[in-house]
Amino acid sequence: MITYEEAFRRVMLYTKDFGTVSVPLMESVNCVLAETIYADRDFPPFNRSTKDGIALQFSAFEANEQRFKIAGVISAGLPQQQLIHATSCLEIMTGAVVPVNADTVVMYEDIDIKDGFATLHTAPREGQNIHVQGSDKKAGTVLLEKGIRIAASEIGILASVGKTSVVIRKTPTVCVISTGDELVPVAQTPKPHQIRTSNVLSLQAALIKENIVATHLHLQDDKPVIEEAILKTLQDYDVLLLSGGVSKGKFDFIPEVMDELGVEKVFHKVLQRPGRPFWFGVHEEYETIVFSFPGNPVSTFSNYYVYFSPWLKNSMGLGVRDRFVILNNDVEIHPVLTLYIPVILEWEGATLIARTIENNGSGDLTSLAETDGFACLPPGDTSYKKGDQVHFIPSK
Amino acid sequence: MITYEEAFRRVMLYTKDFGTVSVPLMESVNCVLAETIYADRDFPPFNRSTKDGIALQFSAFEANEQRFKIAGVISAGLPQQQLIHATSCLEIMTGAVVPVNADTVVMYEDIDIKDGFATLHTAPREGQNIHVQGSDKKAGTVLLEKGIRIAASEIGILASVGKTSVVIRKTPTVCVISTGDELVPVAQTPKPHQIRTSNVLSLQAALIKENIVATHLHLQDDKPVIEEAILKTLQDYDVLLLSGGVSKGKFDFIPEVMDELGVEKVFHKVLQRPGRPFWFGVHEEYETIVFSFPGNPVSTFSNYYVYFSPWLKNSMGLGVRDRFVILNNDVEIHPVLTLYIPVILEWEGATLIARTIENNGSGDLTSLAETDGFACLPPGDTSYKKGDQVHFIPSK
Repeated sequence: MITYEEAFRRVMLYTKDFGTVSVPLMESVNCVLAETIYADRDFPPFNRSTKDGIALQFSAFEANEQRFKIAGVISAGLPQQQLIHATSCLEIMTGAVVPVNADTVVMYEDIDIKDGFATLHTAPREGQNIHVQGSDKKAGTVLLEKGIRIAASEIGILASVGKTSVVIRKTPTVCVISTGDELVPVAQTPKPHQIRTSNVLSLQAALIKENIVATHLHLQDDKPVIEEAILKTLQDYDVLLLSGGVSKGKFDFIPEVMDELGVEKVFHKVLQRPGRPFWFGVHEEYETIVFSFPGNPVSTFSNYYVYFSPWLKNSMGLGVRDRFVILNNDVEIHPVLTLYIPVILEWEGATLIARTIENNGSGDLTSLAETDGFACLPPGDTSYKKGDQVHFIPSK
Repeated sequence: MITYEEAFRRVMLYTKDFGTVSVPLMESVNCVLAETIYADRDFPPFNRSTKDGIALQFSAFEANEQRFKIAGVISAGLPQQQLIHATSCLEIMTGAVVPVNADTVVMYEDIDIKDGFATLHTAPREGQNIHVQGSDKKAGTVLLEKGIRIAASEIGILASVGKTSVVIRKTPTVCVISTGDELVPVAQTPKPHQIRTSNVLSLQAALIKENIVATHLHLQDDKPVIEEAILKTLQDYDVLLLSGGVSKGKFDFIPEVMDELGVEKVFHKVLQRPGRPFWFGVHEEYETIVFSFPGNPVSTFSNYYVYFSPWLKNSMGLGVRDRFVILNNDVEIHPVLTLYIPVILEWEGATLIARTIENNGSGDLTSLAETDGFACLPPGDTSYKKGDQVHFIPSK
């Protein structure tokens, strides 16, 4: 059986570029930018007043002028005006173009206006209150590199250069598949020996955050039915996420069916808890990646974040960084298994503290309430103490 | 002019409960739960086998039985079976109901099966490999408290108790309003003195993350037009977010129009940068909250996160916690203004380190690329040094 590190390494060998697609600007929120964004013109595109006040020629002030005749008003949105006489000024509004022959803006707070004349209170600085053309970025400069996630601030930048549509990285198409005859739909009242489907709904919810609307398919524990359905999903989707059917049970048909359908097993079983029977494979011809998680709720949920999330991040070109947290309590580890322990996070100043959640094993769905992620604890002899820094796998 | 602390305090006085609404389960992702969720039955609802193997009676093993006749197979999803003879066993699959008269499950790895008999390798522990009915949670126990944000793990729990629809906190209806004659739509090529609308698109993108689909309205700098449009939005929306029109300019009609339409000014101008001319008010009759941000891109963007985000969080009942980061470089502060400095975050172990982004003032939209939030620096005499812990306002 392979270790978590080896399983992780092998999963990451199968990251894949799913191409790009152009979408309307507002649909690109939270997506990964797949084109370099250049300044289409200077930023700002003109000498822009940053205050409401008057625009004047500094040399006139230097020549002892303190009182300027107001020759007009320039609002934002007006074409560039001209200051004709150096002894006059133009009222100017924030965002307006500084007129030809003016080089300094004095704000209303620093002048008196009376009888059509503006008198300075205080000595201006040459060039003050002007946001100089191209001083933020010159035309042609890179504003956004490809490969970043588009958040609200990037939307503003994309809008400013006229991107009504944006080229983004495509996400894979995903089918989440539940197995197990004990499962009934959420809307149904289960008989005493049945439970409601929940794992795949958690997965679908997690995928929504990744801009992926996954299809849900439920399979009864009937080998021919499973075979036919899996074949179709292998052909139709980029990724299958299965929950259940990979243990040693008589009705755990998944590994067998995958083999028969030509899905190459990359590995089956990992030295980890929860999720020891995790099965991972790839269909070379259909180019389908298959994550087959054990059916216990905490197994499916943790293994999605341990393996699928970083696989997806890498596939989207975002890269994965190791994260860490400080333990808020002592934790026992396992001699041979890597443990994923659900935690709730709290800030202590600028540092993330993790409190482990008591749970009743991998079947204890209810323990996942408010989980922020998992402390990932390698096997060993010594347990962890409060205050130790440990590897963290976020689930939010 | 009031301080940031005072402005923040006053804005928080106007948080508001927007009621609740019932939505289909999968639409509740990322929303705030507004009902307490109880276990509808025991978790697990029956004594559930956690392994694939055989179910037997421990007292038979104690009476020296090592070899058990296999009397049948129990798969998950079968009604509860019965172990009729203590000298026999039943094969049982993970997730299946432990049969009447059995109390211990031995996994396949620990037995040999031959000629219809299972022989134990190792001594079992009484009760092993059984997830006991009600051991996670008893029927009637609270599984999820109201007031939490629904993430993927909570979706699984909601599904497990049959919540096909979920009562969530309603978000306010929001209209984002741009002003300024220099603005043209994103799709249009601006003339030399014009720029494209971008601030309100950033706001709309930020609101998407809060499950709010905001309406966008652009107003020309024409007082009667502004008046008519604002009146209608006051009547139609819970919140108005305006960008621009609140400075001292001749065409900055917003404060005047708000006053004339009966919007009570809570404050205008704050000792802060960017965003000094921030105007905040409330229309008592229509119960509309008005955040009128200064039009510079960094002003609108930062003030949205400084004031609106915590206002929304509090209004949704989520509560707001102070956040902190460690500075990665020295930062100059201002003697009288609170500064919001855009930063990019990096992890150093479990600690968040903030690197300030060079920018060219509040008009420098392009500096917001990849911004993770703002260091919020109170006014004073001494500047901050690398390694200092400072207040942080996230924008992602």
